[in-house]
Amino acid sequence: MSLPLSSGQTLYQQLADSFAEAIHQGTLKPGKRLPAIRRVAQSHQVSINTVLSAWQLLEDRGLVEARPQSGYYVRGVLPAVKPPLRPLTAQENDPSAQKLALIEQVFAAQHHPDYTNISLACPQDSELFPAARLGRITASLIRRDGDMIGRYALPPGSERLREEIARRSLHSGLNLTVQDITLTHGCMEALQLALRAVTKPGDCVGLESPTYFFLFPLLASLGLKALEIPTDPQEGLALDALEMLLQEQRIQALIAMPGAQNPLGYVMPLANKQRLAKLVNTYQCPLIEDGLYDELQFDWPLSPPVKAFDHEGWVIYCTSFTKTVAPDFRIGWTAAGRFHAAIARLKAVSSMTESRLLSETLAEFLASGGYDHHLRSLRRRYAANLDAARGIIARHYPHGTRATLPRGGFVFWVELPGKVDTVEMFHRLLQEQICVTPGALYTLSDRYKHALRLSCCYPFDARYTWALKRTGALACEITGIAPGQDQGLPLRPQVV
Amino acid sequence: MSLPLSSGQTLYQQLADSFAEAIHQGTLKPGKRLPAIRRVAQSHQVSINTVLSAWQLLEDRGLVEARPQSGYYVRGVLPAVKPPLRPLTAQENDPSAQKLALIEQVFAAQHHPDYTNISLACPQDSELFPAARLGRITASLIRRDGDMIGRYALPPGSERLREEIARRSLHSGLNLTVQDITLTHGCMEALQLALRAVTKPGDCVGLESPTYFFLFPLLASLGLKALEIPTDPQEGLALDALEMLLQEQRIQALIAMPGAQNPLGYVMPLANKQRLAKLVNTYQCPLIEDGLYDELQFDWPLSPPVKAFDHEGWVIYCTSFTKTVAPDFRIGWTAAGRFHAAIARLKAVSSMTESRLLSETLAEFLASGGYDHHLRSLRRRYAANLDAARGIIARHYPHGTRATLPRGGFVFWVELPGKVDTVEMFHRLLQEQICVTPGALYTLSDRYKHALRLSCCYPFDARYTWALKRTGALACEITGIAPGQDQGLPLRPQVV
Repeated sequence: MSLPLSSGQTLYQQLADSFAEAIHQGTLKPGKRLPAIRRVAQSHQVSINTVLSAWQLLEDRGLVEARPQSGYYVRGVLPAVKPPLRPLTAQENDPSAQKLALIEQVFAAQHHPDYTNISLACPQDSELFPAARLGRITASLIRRDGDMIGRYALPPGSERLREEIARRSLHSGLNLTVQDITLTHGCMEALQLALRAVTKPGDCVGLESPTYFFLFPLLASLGLKALEIPTDPQEGLALDALEMLLQEQRIQALIAMPGAQNPLGYVMPLANKQRLAKLVNTYQCPLIEDGLYDELQFDWPLSPPVKAFDHEGWVIYCTSFTKTVAPDFRIGWTAAGRFHAAIARLKAVSSMTESRLLSETLAEFLASGGYDHHLRSLRRRYAANLDAARGIIARHYPHGTRATLPRGGFVFWVELPGKVDTVEMFHRLLQEQICVTPGALYTLSDRYKHALRLSCCYPFDARYTWALKRTGALACEITGIAPGQDQGLPLRPQVV
Repeated sequence: MSLPLSSGQTLYQQLADSFAEAIHQGTLKPGKRLPAIRRVAQSHQVSINTVLSAWQLLEDRGLVEARPQSGYYVRGVLPAVKPPLRPLTAQENDPSAQKLALIEQVFAAQHHPDYTNISLACPQDSELFPAARLGRITASLIRRDGDMIGRYALPPGSERLREEIARRSLHSGLNLTVQDITLTHGCMEALQLALRAVTKPGDCVGLESPTYFFLFPLLASLGLKALEIPTDPQEGLALDALEMLLQEQRIQALIAMPGAQNPLGYVMPLANKQRLAKLVNTYQCPLIEDGLYDELQFDWPLSPPVKAFDHEGWVIYCTSFTKTVAPDFRIGWTAAGRFHAAIARLKAVSSMTESRLLSETLAEFLASGGYDHHLRSLRRRYAANLDAARGIIARHYPHGTRATLPRGGFVFWVELPGKVDTVEMFHRLLQEQICVTPGALYTLSDRYKHALRLSCCYPFDARYTWALKRTGALACEITGIAPGQDQGLPLRPQVV
């Protein structure tokens, strides 16, 4: 390339500056050889002498050293450049952006080995997953048909996986066919496509309160308004309130998580699910049903999704294998009823389709049995983790603390007594390298300032336990309330 | 689950009906065993006797047969159900939906082993890709750190891959850092996110004409208007026309593919690229630069992207490894300049991030060398394929046929003489199991009714050659013009 000419600089100075920047930014690391002179000359369309002059300038500046017969190397005397955790500034015109910035801090900390996360719903305990078996299946697919890596994956994506999903759907009362299913990039993309299919900017979408934190920035990004509907920590969405909203046409779509809700953990009673299905069909309001934790319900038989009672196709069922089988694969799916064709098209023009290698790995896992066995052990583990975590909270959190009793999944909701702002707690704990998520993330209102969502999808080890206890100790310190000592929190409290 | 009660039906009849439907739809295939009675009783919340009665009813209807000591099996006398290629009805309110339905027919045919595709830009010639090497890397990653399959992948995604992309970017004049790059689900998602980041519904987006067919439904899905800008088959976008549009603020964003454009195949001259960069920076109009084929340019050194001259960050560079290394992985990336933070956030709430297993496979491939060697052989192969295809067109297509001379990639553009409607040709060829894409897909106007886009990313074998010739023969038949016999088409014609 020709370098863009800045005034007063010669070509070789510009070239040197551009490589100096790469060294300072860490793109070229200490000890690495600079690219071959001939190659740089070609790609930057300058002479070999220009490159040589640039390299010598870098040497003069102490950034590189020449090694005889070998070339120029980035000098080791430089401190290793580690990019700082970028402080992400909130967009002023987006009320949810500030919260998003908070989530980004949590994400960044999750990556950092020194931080202990007791809050995200992002399984990191790889022992809980059949990683070894999936790995063997992937490796075997590569041996048998490695060529698939070199073939373009086209919509609608792996038929084998959609077949397996359809077969399993018989057991949850969905009775889907291969043609009803669209594969997506995790449940998040399913929700995004569903929203885009059924709303237009300016529309209002009903949400549970509290609800999954990413829904707020997602709605904002699509120009949609959020309307938070009262939600009982055991029964779920207040259906009378919902019916009034539907009658008054105040919402154009609804997102709900009737099976093992995030963050409360409740499972909506069957009769309520049936009524919810009837309501959205009667009022012809699309329900985006997030079934992410449906298969992680603790009670057997599993309660069927609202979609099972959806006679006119107004329910868009969204889910994923990300929380149950293969967190890394990010393969989800949606059965979108009357919106199927619209969503299948949106998927194609939005991100085409999913990798066949990963899809068929999952298909083979599902076909070869053992999925239900795996789910049972996952449920047992999460239920045990939740009990243990609640035990710690009962003993170490301020007297009067309340917590939900999840009927599935691995997240739960804690409300602290007294005067406390959990966003402040979040920042203080972050300094101690502990990550929690404050209630403020789960609403656009200020009604959950005293709440925290916690999660049990991490290894339940000494470090996790320590962080959980330390969070309680800080809450006691801030509120000035002594810990519960097994009395403040009933062993299995029923409500928030 | 409790079955929704239809009037006048008993429980076991409903259960039987629901399984009969599954059998008719092919979800339960002939020869398969019905699920265990106890399990169905549990999951449908009915008694074991109810399930038994339902199975007997299915047996009476001839749908299943009981095998002693074994269970109930779906009867083999049923014809194997193969879902028909669903005729996809166009959405009335979306002018691009009819075209999308056409594309879906092409996609469906691409999956079908009896069809010969000579048109899609979806590499199926796995020999062209380092599938075996990638497969070995994936398998080795699984051996070394298979646990990663069981760990949640979080934004911003694999740092190793972003490091490798940043390092390579030095050679194309981009000089990116790890923090400038957002991984996406292919280039398609990068384009989608970029559009969502810089436009609002009602905005108008400038496009090359002709342009990539999925841009029209993508714009429509986001409530955006398309404005097609005259595009020279050698020089690209008419920059004077563009400048007028920018002055008059008639477009709020621009999508262009200055390096090896789809469908024309031109590479925009360097001076034009520099002027384009200056224009969008001066008028502060975001340019979404689709660099999908940049590394498949035939001339060396590669011409740098417009992004290399982007001083104020108005260019959003989008590209992918899908056409160059691993079609199945669908991993792309964007360097979005001043829109980086906005796009990184949109990615997180739209589909979270990419699989670490696949990302690190690519990273290791890039780090271990051989990528440039692979690209060189890919370029040689495509250039040779294109020459051969143009030779066939010169001899077998109507006298007066014109074709572009691509400077990169593997698609090219053919304009037929005389009276011909290539949509009609498309349908006739589809009956002969040959897939082409008509010019009508590449515009919202009717100016390319006589054009076809063809592609050379398929094995250049007897079958491909036959389909290419047959398409020419049909064109001769329709136009009544004799084939060129090496005279109509110059060996290397320069323009459309």
